[in-house]
Amino acid sequence: MLLTLASPSVVLGGGVRLGVSSRAGLALMATQDELKKQVGYKAVDDYVKSGMVVGLGTGSTAAFAVERVGQLLKEGKLTDIVAIPTSVRTKEQAEELGIPLTTLGTPESRFSKIDVAIDGADAVDPQLNLIKGGGGALFREKIVEECADKFIVIVDDSKMCDGLGPSFALPVEIAPFCWEHTMRAIAELPSLKGGKPQLRLGSSANNAVDGKDPAVTDNGLYIVDVFFDTPIADAPKAAAELKGLCGVFEHGLFCGMTTSVIIAGKDGISQKP
Amino acid sequence: MLLTLASPSVVLGGGVRLGVSSRAGLALMATQDELKKQVGYKAVDDYVKSGMVVGLGTGSTAAFAVERVGQLLKEGKLTDIVAIPTSVRTKEQAEELGIPLTTLGTPESRFSKIDVAIDGADAVDPQLNLIKGGGGALFREKIVEECADKFIVIVDDSKMCDGLGPSFALPVEIAPFCWEHTMRAIAELPSLKGGKPQLRLGSSANNAVDGKDPAVTDNGLYIVDVFFDTPIADAPKAAAELKGLCGVFEHGLFCGMTTSVIIAGKDGISQKP
Repeated sequence: MLLTLASPSVVLGGGVRLGVSSRAGLALMATQDELKKQVGYKAVDDYVKSGMVVGLGTGSTAAFAVERVGQLLKEGKLTDIVAIPTSVRTKEQAEELGIPLTTLGTPESRFSKIDVAIDGADAVDPQLNLIKGGGGALFREKIVEECADKFIVIVDDSKMCDGLGPSFALPVEIAPFCWEHTMRAIAELPSLKGGKPQLRLGSSANNAVDGKDPAVTDNGLYIVDVFFDTPIADAPKAAAELKGLCGVFEHGLFCGMTTSVIIAGKDGISQKP
Repeated sequence: MLLTLASPSVVLGGGVRLGVSSRAGLALMATQDELKKQVGYKAVDDYVKSGMVVGLGTGSTAAFAVERVGQLLKEGKLTDIVAIPTSVRTKEQAEELGIPLTTLGTPESRFSKIDVAIDGADAVDPQLNLIKGGGGALFREKIVEECADKFIVIVDDSKMCDGLGPSFALPVEIAPFCWEHTMRAIAELPSLKGGKPQLRLGSSANNAVDGKDPAVTDNGLYIVDVFFDTPIADAPKAAAELKGLCGVFEHGLFCGMTTSVIIAGKDGISQKP
C-alpha cells in the first residue's frame, strides 16, 4: 500500500534520506518528505507576500518552507523579503538560497514586527497548543514566533494528538548549575503530574540518547525531556508553572500562539481552524 | 563625627579596604565593615546550629557570615555542618576556611533541604522584599535560598528603602541571543513602568561600567540593570512578569522569601520582623 502512495519521481526526490535499506522504507520516507514539502510550500504560497518580515522555523518540515521562499525570490515572484532564522541550521540554509536575513530588534525587522512565521511542531492538540523543541531550538523559535502577527504551523498528521505529552516528550531548557535539583523540581510541579524528566544526552538537536555527556543548547544550557503516559491536563497552566521555576530558562509548550495549522495526510492537505 | 564611631582597632581591622586617601574616608569604610561584620556574625550565632545544612551568600556582608561559620567550626563550637555556596567566590572562601561543602540535590544536602541561608541584599523594602544581584550571582543565590527553611538577610541600614527601585537598579539575567529585543520587552512590561534598562558591561560582579564588552554571568548569560526614578509599585507582580518573559532567565527581585532581616545602623543592630 505504501508503494502505491509514492510515484517514481517522489522516490527519487531531493528529500530522500540516506541509509534506507528496503524499498518499502524508501517509499515511506519519500512519501513523508513529499507531504512535508506540500505543507511547507502551501504555507509560503498562502501567507508570505512581497515586503514582509518572515520568521523561518527549524526542522525537516520547516526546511521546505525555507526552500520555497528561496525559490520564489529567485523567480522574482516574491520581492523585498527579510527573514529571521530560528537556528544556525536554518540561517545557513537561507544564506545558501540568497534569502536576505536579519534578527529581532533591528530596523530591518521593523523592530521585531514580524508579519508571518512558519514552523513545524512535534505535537499539536485540539486547541492548537504545541510541543516543540525536539530539535533543541525551542527558545529561538519561541522568541521569534511570539513576535509574529501570524504563526503558521506545518505538520504531517502523525503530529496531531488528543492531548500533549504521550506522543512526544516535553523539552525544558534549564541551567547546568544544580540541574538535578531543577529536574526534581520540574517533576514535582502539580501541572506535570506523572511526568518523568530525563536529561538529554549527546546532540541537543534530537531527543535520542546519542552520547554520554549532557546535550548543550545554542544558549549554553541543558535540556530535560519530560515523558508522559497520560496527557498534560492543562497545557497553559503547565507552561506558566514551568517558566516560573527558578532554574528553567524556557520550555517547549507553545500555548495560544498558533494562527493556523496546515496538516498533510494520506488523503491530502487540511487546515485548522 | 565619623571618627568618633571608629575605634583604632576597627580602623586597623582586617576589613579595611585599600586605596582610601583621607582619614575620614578610612574611618567610614572601617565603620561600614565593622557593621557588616556585626550582622554577619550575629546571623550565624543566632541561626546556625550543629548538624545543619547552611546556604552561604555572596558579597562583602555575607563574607563575614562565612568567616564566622569557619571560625566556630575551627573552635569546635559548631560541628557536623554542610554548606552550599552561592558563587565561586564564596566557595573559594569557604574552602580556605575548611567548611565542608556540597551542592543542591545531593544526599549531603538532604536533597536540597537547607535549614538556613544567610545572605546580604542590595535593597530591602518594608515588606522585606529584596533586590539582589548587584554582584551578578542572583540565580545561584535564588535557587539555593528558595530551598531554605529560614532565609536570614544581613544588611547595613543604607539598604533599607520605602520602595524597591530608586536606591538600586534591578538586575535581570537574559539570553545573549536577541538581547536588544529582550531588553526592549523588559522596558515595556506594565509592572516596570518608567524603568530604564541598560546592558551590564565589563565585570558581571558589579553594575559599574568597567568594560566595553557585555558582562557574562556564571551561566554564560547577560545582565540588564533596570534603573528607576520612582519605586516599583508591585514587586511580586513585577517578579512574575519578568520571569514569564521569553528571553529572561532570572531576575533580582526576591519576594516573599525573607524570614528575617538583621540591620546594622549607627545606633546598633535591629531586626525585622
